[in-house]
Amino acid sequence: METTPHNPARRRLLAGSAGALAAAGLGAPGLALAAEAAKPAATAAKPLPPYAAWKDADSVIVHSANTIETRRGAFGDGVITPSRQLYVRNNLPPPDPSILDDRDAWKVQIQGVKQPRTLTVGELKTLGVETLATVLQCSGNGRGFFPHKPSGTPWEVGAAGCVMWTGVPVRTLVEFLGGVEGAPAYMTGTGGEILPEGMDPKSLMVERSVPREAMQDALLAWEMNGEPLSLAHGGPLRLIVPGYTGVNNVKYLKQLAFTAEQSPAKIQQTGYRLTPMGAKPSPDQPSVWAMDPKSWITGPGAQDQPVKAGRAVVRGVAFGGMHAVKRVDVSIDGGKTWKQAALIGPDLGKYAWRQFALPVELTAGQHVLVSRVEDSEGNVQVEARADNAPGYVNSSWRDHALTVDVS
Amino acid sequence: METTPHNPARRRLLAGSAGALAAAGLGAPGLALAAEAAKPAATAAKPLPPYAAWKDADSVIVHSANTIETRRGAFGDGVITPSRQLYVRNNLPPPDPSILDDRDAWKVQIQGVKQPRTLTVGELKTLGVETLATVLQCSGNGRGFFPHKPSGTPWEVGAAGCVMWTGVPVRTLVEFLGGVEGAPAYMTGTGGEILPEGMDPKSLMVERSVPREAMQDALLAWEMNGEPLSLAHGGPLRLIVPGYTGVNNVKYLKQLAFTAEQSPAKIQQTGYRLTPMGAKPSPDQPSVWAMDPKSWITGPGAQDQPVKAGRAVVRGVAFGGMHAVKRVDVSIDGGKTWKQAALIGPDLGKYAWRQFALPVELTAGQHVLVSRVEDSEGNVQVEARADNAPGYVNSSWRDHALTVDVS
Repeated sequence: METTPHNPARRRLLAGSAGALAAAGLGAPGLALAAEAAKPAATAAKPLPPYAAWKDADSVIVHSANTIETRRGAFGDGVITPSRQLYVRNNLPPPDPSILDDRDAWKVQIQGVKQPRTLTVGELKTLGVETLATVLQCSGNGRGFFPHKPSGTPWEVGAAGCVMWTGVPVRTLVEFLGGVEGAPAYMTGTGGEILPEGMDPKSLMVERSVPREAMQDALLAWEMNGEPLSLAHGGPLRLIVPGYTGVNNVKYLKQLAFTAEQSPAKIQQTGYRLTPMGAKPSPDQPSVWAMDPKSWITGPGAQDQPVKAGRAVVRGVAFGGMHAVKRVDVSIDGGKTWKQAALIGPDLGKYAWRQFALPVELTAGQHVLVSRVEDSEGNVQVEARADNAPGYVNSSWRDHALTVDVS
Repeated sequence: METTPHNPARRRLLAGSAGALAAAGLGAPGLALAAEAAKPAATAAKPLPPYAAWKDADSVIVHSANTIETRRGAFGDGVITPSRQLYVRNNLPPPDPSILDDRDAWKVQIQGVKQPRTLTVGELKTLGVETLATVLQCSGNGRGFFPHKPSGTPWEVGAAGCVMWTGVPVRTLVEFLGGVEGAPAYMTGTGGEILPEGMDPKSLMVERSVPREAMQDALLAWEMNGEPLSLAHGGPLRLIVPGYTGVNNVKYLKQLAFTAEQSPAKIQQTGYRLTPMGAKPSPDQPSVWAMDPKSWITGPGAQDQPVKAGRAVVRGVAFGGMHAVKRVDVSIDGGKTWKQAALIGPDLGKYAWRQFALPVELTAGQHVLVSRVEDSEGNVQVEARADNAPGYVNSSWRDHALTVDVS
């Protein structure tokens, strides 16, 4: 019996046991732990948290209940990252799943427009609909490659994916409400997480401001990859700010405001700042907003799969951040020599990633596979990371090398 | 606890009960039947078969173990149909799931080329890679609208989806093998289903021939929607013939041949022919191959969701078959008056479908929502079905109307 489309062999191994219950997210935590014993050592990690129990356990690395990374070999070559394989990063525990019981009843307050008001998701759906593919990437993706070992999750390549969002364009919504009031500098989204009592809400709340011009392509999304938006990814409603790192795409959106100042929340004022090495976080340091050009190799040889000498197709993903991909070059000798790769699959727009492929001949021995993207404006992926204390936005092609042993 | 991204409310209703096991496809048939009692009458249907137990039960109609239809409201608005919501049509029961235990070891024999040989999927992966979005549509989709009630599954709109395939282009493979031998008229794919003993294989085998020029854009695919190809959809390897109806996209592909004649199999000779009403199936009748322009409405009001008077966004899917979509017109009065809809989401190429949307004002009362697509060559979706005995390729826009009661 095949219970999932991915890796049925492992599923079958577990079928009929407590492991099958745990793999399906139906078991008690004790059962989930019991199931781990059946896994090979490489995947014997933390169990998936209940709200993300529907993820494919073989495709992800569970760092914690709120930080789940996609394995380098598990993005697939189909441009869109399957939902079951997509990373998760929550800044706070997600709200109770009951908020999905009546998705259309979820309310969002719109402020800083000529006719401020509260709308339900059901009402948003009557205003318009657009679908957009974007790279969703955690600000800390690549942090694991910083030699100073910043605190925070040591993500390597997998706190990223390319997904399809459906919702109403923010510009359509704003137009419906009479336009923006005055000349606010920022668009500020507020998450609907429940904050613990007795603490200053500003110290915990997920409220992020981005430059107002980001509203042009932004969406309020209720669907991801064709399915109603899951709790893990911000359902019932998420603010999508194309080209901006994950944290700016506020989940469980309960308020969208056009504001003169950035949010007073700690996550905006001192969190997600490009703080220099040795310095203290401060609002005068650059905020982590738009993404830079970046690419990495996804195969062959990710996840220690054996690679045989001879013909092979080197593959990977590449994006420009705010601009379309122009070209990708690949090296199988750690950057000494380069060849241009072909971009494969449909072009889903400038905020999506492109997948690339280069047929090569691999000789026996060790090879260091790297890729380097150039965007439509001539910006080239950097060779060296820009060091910063919290370990954000590492785009170094050298750091993202995949070393494979060819036999 | 949320166990799936879709419809967690129903899941929770079932959680902790035998129903939860059945919903996850893990229960015995008896348990699955028990779970049905908790469902509303409209979905109290057959349980999902084990090989497709990972499908979203709320998104599909199970006609039989080998015929599973997507509900009209369950395609999503994200262009790509999620795998869990995609229809299934098998002409024979699928092979044993153990054929997925070592996907790269699956063998396919290539005939009718200068250097005929057998290759493994692992070897195919070293030749090249391409990703392509196509509409996959059963030849009998829309059969349920034929008034003469042909035998076969009475599919309405949901034996179709738009999915992303990754594999090696057939033209790359053929070039690798020295090119086609001679001037064969057909490309013939053979499925790897196990045939019962003691019967003429030709009477049962799934072997389909298509005109040789279809090889130009064809793929041998090992991935669908970014995941290794499931057994339900033809894994480890499927022949993808873009623009051609589902049956021509042979699952569990064990042989690909370039042939002078069409396959002698019954499924080719007399099956899937546009047999006139009252006539007997015969090889001189047109084979069901390339698809025609077709579209249908997916909402609002699919699945009897209540629709309130006022502003609404009418949505749907449209494809040209062999050509790109040029425009889609929508009518909310059964075809008396039309307005051009906007095409939404990224354009995934001429073989993919486009999703469309038209904001309208709906008054209280009954409305008949219809859509009509025109392709880039000026071919317009037909108003009336072309009657044929077996009920194939119904593209009538009138037949595919969605009637909604607005209150």
